Parts: sequence; C-alpha cells; structure tokens
Amino acid sequence: MIRRDCTVAVVGACGAVGREALRILAAHDHPPDRVIAVGSERSIGLFTEYGEGELPLVPLESLYERRDVPRAAVLGTPADVSRIAAANLLEAGWHVVDNSSAFRADVLVPLVIPEVNPHALPRRCDRPQLVANPNCSTIILLVAIAPLARAFGVARINVATYQAVSGAGAAAMDELRLQAGEVLAGRDSTRGVFRHQCAFNVFSHDSAVDAGSGINGEERKLIDESRRILERPRLAVTPTCVRVPVFRAHTEAITIELENPAAESEIRELLGTARGVRVVDDRQNNTFPMPVLATDGDDVLVGRIRPDPAAELDGAGRCTSWCLLVSADQLRKGAALNALQIAGELVGARAPRAVGGDRLPTGVTARP
Amino acid sequence: MIRRDCTVAVVGACGAVGREALRILAAHDHPPDRVIAVGSERSIGLFTEYGEGELPLVPLESLYERRDVPRAAVLGTPADVSRIAAANLLEAGWHVVDNSSAFRADVLVPLVIPEVNPHALPRRCDRPQLVANPNCSTIILLVAIAPLARAFGVARINVATYQAVSGAGAAAMDELRLQAGEVLAGRDSTRGVFRHQCAFNVFSHDSAVDAGSGINGEERKLIDESRRILERPRLAVTPTCVRVPVFRAHTEAITIELENPAAESEIRELLGTARGVRVVDDRQNNTFPMPVLATDGDDVLVGRIRPDPAAELDGAGRCTSWCLLVSADQLRKGAALNALQIAGELVGARAPRAVGGDRLPTGVTARP
Repeated sequence: MIRRDCTVAVVGACGAVGREALRILAAHDHPPDRVIAVGSERSIGLFTEYGEGELPLVPLESLYERRDVPRAAVLGTPADVSRIAAANLLEAGWHVVDNSSAFRADVLVPLVIPEVNPHALPRRCDRPQLVANPNCSTIILLVAIAPLARAFGVARINVATYQAVSGAGAAAMDELRLQAGEVLAGRDSTRGVFRHQCAFNVFSHDSAVDAGSGINGEERKLIDESRRILERPRLAVTPTCVRVPVFRAHTEAITIELENPAAESEIRELLGTARGVRVVDDRQNNTFPMPVLATDGDDVLVGRIRPDPAAELDGAGRCTSWCLLVSADQLRKGAALNALQIAGELVGARAPRAVGGDRLPTGVTARP
Repeated sequence: MIRRDCTVAVVGACGAVGREALRILAAHDHPPDRVIAVGSERSIGLFTEYGEGELPLVPLESLYERRDVPRAAVLGTPADVSRIAAANLLEAGWHVVDNSSAFRADVLVPLVIPEVNPHALPRRCDRPQLVANPNCSTIILLVAIAPLARAFGVARINVATYQAVSGAGAAAMDELRLQAGEVLAGRDSTRGVFRHQCAFNVFSHDSAVDAGSGINGEERKLIDESRRILERPRLAVTPTCVRVPVFRAHTEAITIELENPAAESEIRELLGTARGVRVVDDRQNNTFPMPVLATDGDDVLVGRIRPDPAAELDGAGRCTSWCLLVSADQLRKGAALNALQIAGELVGARAPRAVGGDRLPTGVTARP
C-alpha cells in the first residue's frame, strides 16, 4: 500500500480516523520508526498503540523540522486545523492527504478515490502534493457504481444512506455505547455529540440543513463530490442521508440509472471483477452487504443487485435502472484506508523534497 | 374510533399487534366487558393486561357462539391462522379485519387505509365484512404521499425503508434487547428470529428474496399493495427494504415523482392539513421524523420536505420530484390502529348480524 521506506505522519492520531490509520499501517507492518503519531497539545508526552508496541504522541510542529525522504502526512483533523497544517506541511516538504472537507471543493486540489479517478492524481510528484480525501459516503457510493458508470454511462443516482456514528468521531461511538446501555436499563439517554438519541433510533444526518434548499451538509457533499469525481458537473444525484445506530460501517441503498441498457450478467461481471469491490449477494440465504460483514474490512461490499422493478426490460432482458445495496467500513475505505492508498500513490510517483516558496494551491495559507 | 357498544375481539392478543390493539382500546376507554382477548391454545386460562385491569384469554372457538351486536374481530395472527379464523368468524356474524398477508391480494377483499382509500370500504354492511389491513410499510408510505398523489398525480415512487424489528413480532423486539446487551458486554449475539445480528447492524429485510427478480417479500408487498390501494396497476415503485435496530417505528426515505409540477408551499399546505399526518420539519434545529418521536403516536410524521435536488425547477419554483422522510409507529398506524379504524368504519356503517350460508369471498374457506 505504501513503501516501507516512507515516513508516514498521522496527524490527529487519537481521533477515530487517525487511530484507524495507525491500525492499518501496523497491520501492513509499516516500520514503527517510520510512523509518526501527531497528537493535540494536551496529548503530547503520552503514547498511542502501534501494533504490539506504542508510539509517542508528538506535536505537529516537530514535523516541520524533519527531512525524511520519502514522507507523507495523513490529516485526520477538523477542517480548520487541516487548512493551517496542510500549508505548513507542504512547505516543509510533506505530501499531504487531508481527510477533512477543507480542500474538497478546491479545483486546484485533486479529490481522489484510487479505484475511481486515479487519473486525477499527479503523474510525477516533483514537489509536495496536497490531495483531498472525499467524504466517506461518496467514496462508498462511487467505488460501487464507478464500474457501471464507466461501462454504461450514469444518468441519475438516488441514494439513501444508513450511516454509522463513527463518521462523527470517536466520541460519537462512545455515545452510542453509553446510550444503548442507558436505554436497556430504562434510563434517559445522555446527549453529547448528537442532538438526538442515537441508540435504538435513526435520524436525518446531523450536518446543518440549508434553510433554502432543505439539503443537509452530508447530502451536499454527496452531490458535489460525486459530480466532481465522475467529472459530470450537472449529474442528477438525489441523496437522503440518515444516521443509524451502527458503530462504524455505512450502508447505502442505491438506484442508478444508466445512459445505456445493461443485462444483469454484465452488471455482475463488472462488479465481480472491480477493484475494491466484493460482491455479497446470496438470495437463497438472504445474505447481503451489512455492517457486521463490512466492519474491519477493506472492500466495499455490493449486493441486492437487481433490475429496478419500475424499469422496463427490453427483449434481451436489459434495462437502464438498477438497484444495489452496499456496505463498507466508514473508517477504512471511507477514510483512513483511502487516504493511505492516496499517500502510497503519491510516494510511489516520486519522493517529495522540501520546496519552500513554491506556489501553494488556492485557499492554502502558510502559518497564518 | 369504534363505538363503545361494539364488542371487539382481539385475536392473537399476546402478539405484538394484539397487545397494541388492547392498549389502544384501553386508552380509548373501550369498556372491558366489550373486549374479548383471544389467545393461543397454550395461553387459555391466563390473563392479559387491559388498562388498569386484566382480561381472560379465551379460545377462538368461543367467539363462534357469541351473538353480541355490533361485533368486530381484529386478527393479529399469522396468515395461515387468519385464513381459517376469518371464514369461521364471518360465518358467525363478525366483521373481520385481518392484519396478515392472507387476503391482501384477494380482489374480493378490500385493502384499506381509511385516510387513503376510504371509498374501498363497503358503504352499508348488511352482512359481516372482511377487510384486509395493508402491510405496515405500505400504510406509512401511502398516508404520507396520498395527499400529493391526489392533488398532482403520482408518476413514480422510490422508497428506502428503515424498518423496526417489531414487524417481525414481539420475539424480535426481545431479541434486539438481548443482543444489544450481549454486544455491549463483548459477547457473541444470540440469534433466534433473525438470521443476522440485529443489534448495531442493519440488514436487507428478512422476507424471502425471489430467486429470479431479486425482490424480497416486503418489497413485493410495497409494490403490489401501493398499486392496488392507489388504483394504479402499473405504478412505478422502486423499494429497498432494510431492517434497523429500532424497536417499533419504521422510517422511510421517499422520492415521489408527480405527474404535474408542484410548489413547496402547495406541498406543505397539503401535508399540513392531511388526516393522519403530522409535519415535523425543523431545519433550524435539525429535527425531523424519527422513531423516538413517532413511537407510541398515532400520526405518520412527515418532514425533510424538499424538492429533489436532481429536478429542474420551472420559473415559478415548481417541480415534479420531491423528497420526504417519514416515520410512524409500526404497531400503531402500521398495524393495530389502522385495523381498529377500519373496524370502526365497518361497525359505523351498520351492525352485522349472523348470516350463516352467505357467499364468502374467494379464498375464504369455512372450517376446513
């Protein structure tokens, strides 16, 4: 996934995404002396798990002094922190993959899912690169439908999400656990991260709702990022984003309308051989993609592959509208894994060197 | 809801639907001496709660001897039991409302949601009537969209469900509670009603999946019953039915395409005044329909009312595609309440009398 001689900095190492990035690196036996765990101010001096051992939590500023080559930093920090950190890290010669929404709409910063739009990655990295990691729901949606979009063209997407609480961070996962115990004990549930009870409930996604359009922030990301990554600026996307009481895997019910008709055998062939996809579609045993199967895995599980019952089939059994159910680990392919895959591509393209003074992408300001 | 001088028999009084029917009758102060709780063989001689008091559980056969007028029986029994019970009860002069799937596809048996197709109810009930109660997901969907379908015509429905476990009965609710405790304690989860873990998971609906079409039983009901109740035999319906770890309220993400364009103000006006609907749509406070608000309530909650972002708006801000999020108590409006409302309408139309020998609807066989 990423060259073992590369120094990888995980910024926000104690957050849900940072912890998962460390777990993935450790599982891939990335040498501990080539992994730097960057913590928040109050965590400095403490340690975090890394495989069988542990790593010291160091301040972000310590990265600016290092000259390891190759080096790549994965940011699992909030957007405001990422904006500043990314600029300084680029200046200090680090490739940067940011997991926040800070740069996703910036046309100068590639927004990449390696299985979907690898061509958006820089071919040669003669200078440090900044790449944005898409929103988790978008990654999971597009890994599943990209093979179909490539082969038959995509005309329209309708997607309803069943999103795990992990997307709101580690504290949200603790909150679900706490609330579930409280509800089982017949007590009132404690609210913290979420306005509404998450245990034994589902609610419209907790991102802000636009007063005019009625679309929430998560749905807006799904629309805008899907259009950008598929390079279809006016693609019809109809999302409804909902949280469910699941710890860390998102599920999505998708209807995709294609520009050209497809047969079920063609759809299955494409999905069965697609990178990053695992088909789980056992009608006999009623076993399809679901969080308990997707959690801790790298693949986007795809199943319930069926023609839209509202679609007309042509004489050859082809139609243009298809339904899918997908599930994937939000913290892995939806965040840390995709970011590390991008980092691996950047490092593989060419090791970066310090380039102080190079032009930074729009919106990136060094040391404000 | 139902005349107090009517004797109401609740058949399957210990099941999830039966218990809820008794709760509703008690809340409406229906006189205990006008309520008969019918239990299964092994429960006879025991008692069940009714308001502050209790009722004896009696065998089904005891109803055949009674001559109370008016009288109506609500069946919360499996389809095979309902088929036999309905025939005998009709013969004994009872109005019958069946909550199973036994008669829903029978063209001679009305399938009714009082808010949606009251005209399908018999006008005058000179003889005992059998009416089928629709599937819970269908009731919740159609109560929400019927006002829009009536005003603007419906061209297509896409619906993804977030279904509570109560639809699989009282044992499924116990199973969710048990499994949640096991998962929190780090233990393996016990399976019983469901093949897959329901706690902290979501899975494709547990009804059988058709090997050819890939559509599951719940989705088939949504398609067929919606077409029948809306009297649109070829209506385009695209359902995806999914279980979520919620005890007793279903949620549905709906995209409805209309035949004629509508403005948001018109949609809101219609839903705001629709019978059985309560609009919960607070964008500022991110509060929309969800199980914790719908549970134990009679209304179908409707919110997230917004134009489909994929739709084109005309000059007057009208468009033909709309998104909604709805939630309602599966055991109330999705089952027991709708059945009791139908029973009330039948009894209100005219008290039945015993009519042994009358022609029974197709598929109904007396005492096999």
